[in-house]
Amino acid sequence: MQNFAFHNPTKLYFGRGQIASVAVEIPLGSKVLMTYGGGSIKANRVYAQVQEALRDFQVLEFSGIEPNPSFETLMKAVELVRAESIDFLLAVGGGSVLDGTKFIAVAAPFQGGDPWDICAKGAVPVCALPLGAVLTLPATGSESNNYAVISRLSTREKLAFGHPLAFPRFAVLDPESTLSLPKRQIANGVVDAFVHVMEQYLTYPTFAPVQDQFSEGLLRTLIEVGPITLREPEQYEARAAFVWAATLALNGLIGAGVPQDWATHMIGHELTAAFGLDHAQSLAVVLPALLTERLDAKGDKLAQYAERVWNLKEGDAQTRAAQAIDHTRTFFESLGVKTRLKDYGIGAENVPALIDALEAHGMKALGERQDVTVDVSRRVLERAL
Amino acid sequence: MQNFAFHNPTKLYFGRGQIASVAVEIPLGSKVLMTYGGGSIKANRVYAQVQEALRDFQVLEFSGIEPNPSFETLMKAVELVRAESIDFLLAVGGGSVLDGTKFIAVAAPFQGGDPWDICAKGAVPVCALPLGAVLTLPATGSESNNYAVISRLSTREKLAFGHPLAFPRFAVLDPESTLSLPKRQIANGVVDAFVHVMEQYLTYPTFAPVQDQFSEGLLRTLIEVGPITLREPEQYEARAAFVWAATLALNGLIGAGVPQDWATHMIGHELTAAFGLDHAQSLAVVLPALLTERLDAKGDKLAQYAERVWNLKEGDAQTRAAQAIDHTRTFFESLGVKTRLKDYGIGAENVPALIDALEAHGMKALGERQDVTVDVSRRVLERAL
Repeated sequence: MQNFAFHNPTKLYFGRGQIASVAVEIPLGSKVLMTYGGGSIKANRVYAQVQEALRDFQVLEFSGIEPNPSFETLMKAVELVRAESIDFLLAVGGGSVLDGTKFIAVAAPFQGGDPWDICAKGAVPVCALPLGAVLTLPATGSESNNYAVISRLSTREKLAFGHPLAFPRFAVLDPESTLSLPKRQIANGVVDAFVHVMEQYLTYPTFAPVQDQFSEGLLRTLIEVGPITLREPEQYEARAAFVWAATLALNGLIGAGVPQDWATHMIGHELTAAFGLDHAQSLAVVLPALLTERLDAKGDKLAQYAERVWNLKEGDAQTRAAQAIDHTRTFFESLGVKTRLKDYGIGAENVPALIDALEAHGMKALGERQDVTVDVSRRVLERAL
Repeated sequence: MQNFAFHNPTKLYFGRGQIASVAVEIPLGSKVLMTYGGGSIKANRVYAQVQEALRDFQVLEFSGIEPNPSFETLMKAVELVRAESIDFLLAVGGGSVLDGTKFIAVAAPFQGGDPWDICAKGAVPVCALPLGAVLTLPATGSESNNYAVISRLSTREKLAFGHPLAFPRFAVLDPESTLSLPKRQIANGVVDAFVHVMEQYLTYPTFAPVQDQFSEGLLRTLIEVGPITLREPEQYEARAAFVWAATLALNGLIGAGVPQDWATHMIGHELTAAFGLDHAQSLAVVLPALLTERLDAKGDKLAQYAERVWNLKEGDAQTRAAQAIDHTRTFFESLGVKTRLKDYGIGAENVPALIDALEAHGMKALGERQDVTVDVSRRVLERAL
């Protein structure tokens, strides 16, 4: 096991009716900015429940945070926060609203120049507005981690930042509030959570049995409950298990003390930035191709994955590894998430520009051994055609 | 899954050389009281490393916190904290030192009368001294939870309390600093961690696949690395996996959203209070007897435990359940921890007094369904003879 520091101070409220808990977690007298996306929270009962919980607070609203939240939109919220002297941010939505609100939290008090530098140049925030979250779309784990991914429309960049100040103080996870989500978002969420685990698990064996078994447990859970919660969206128990798995997939725990990859995410970000693929679609395309390209480098862990997650015990290690990649692809497809670039209208002629963008963003040494060069990434995309 | 709130704000530093991190976590200018047990931390290099890390702080020491830390000893530390206006407590030791220091932290500023009421009468602390921990004995999980068990010698009571203010601000887990521990303490630690998981897992099935798989992963890890780390104490990797498993066994995560038992602990506490058994010895005696007594009530989960943890797939569910209990007992014995009351010189004639004590402490409705009555506890002890 590698040395690590692990800290996750977010307080989680999980279950039916927990949205009322926001009232006890926001300091009395706070001027709250409630952030959200489109109007879906008004169609289900989430908006009403949050309003009810906040009835003793002064509340302003900022809506319109889009999927792959944009710097341009978020800076309008930053202006509002500054103009209105907001004390507390309450993000109500999925990963995009949460990520966007984290950026608002660090950007509003930022005095070091252009807040985009926090994403683009590693500028370090020294303070942040406190934020809480009401999760409505299980997928990204953003509700209890300190990471955010922000897109800048004007430059077609999609970049991440992370800082301890960006942890939500609390997060409410009410699976019931997610039951009315469209199937596409649920399928995307399952893929997203699955790939988050894979990025922290599918590297090379170190003796870290707890982390391995936790990761394998999350993957098996997603394989079990993903199809159920997609097919029977009204079933609370399967949805609850999915929500909890998605949170634990990226709260820092399973990745503590082990090598991590994240090449699939970095390559996938370019697909989203250039062609507008859903985040999960980009991951579903890149992961099987990357695992195939890296069959030798990841062979030992792939064999373990094959055996423990997919129960594949016949044949030699390489055969089982290849079968496990096939199973992974079939699993994503069974959820309705396509896994080939051509499914999204992207052809070989688009690869050079994608690789140029990857290079321009400094992604020249990806993966758990920093040996996924630009050439390797090109071969990954070619395998994904 | 049941509704739950989960919050664990303790920052963990894990690995070789991490003791130096205490210097960055304690506020500069703090007057620190370092608490510890006997002199073992001076025999290995822990004491020297802590002193080196604290060289820029004013440090007082309080030693002599005993196994099953006593109210009587801890109140001497409380007097010292008050007299010296201590700002920060740094516990250096195992579960007993940590539990004791948590009590010091809430007792020192307690103004509601006798601090023992925090354990005995549910008196609620309103403030606490901040505390940090350097763990030297993996077992109890106390380094990242908010629970403590305190014994009062004068009344032969052993009682628990828990409060959010009792979470350590940080904890250092350096597996290397545990390599010189006596085998008995390692064996006890493996049993203790194992039973902590069982108390949160072995109840009745609810649809909580993440919690189940995390618990089963911890149990399998302890079964795998426990014997290795006992046999080859110099092997860092196995010890590191054990340390991490022991922490996660009782940090609130695996028990969130599922029924919990804790009858084994409550009955075991009486054995320690009356006969001085090590905490882990008391658990090793009670657990197999309790599982046997509760074979019907726990049958479904026992069958799952048999299959997933012990790989027992032959025979009907009841047969597998009984085999799994045998395997559990054999595992404890293989570590050198005896599992029968007679091994500790306790006979049938001692059972009535133990049951009287349990009743006097209000333990009349234990277990995940509160149906472990005093009569059931008597039968458990009789099965443990």
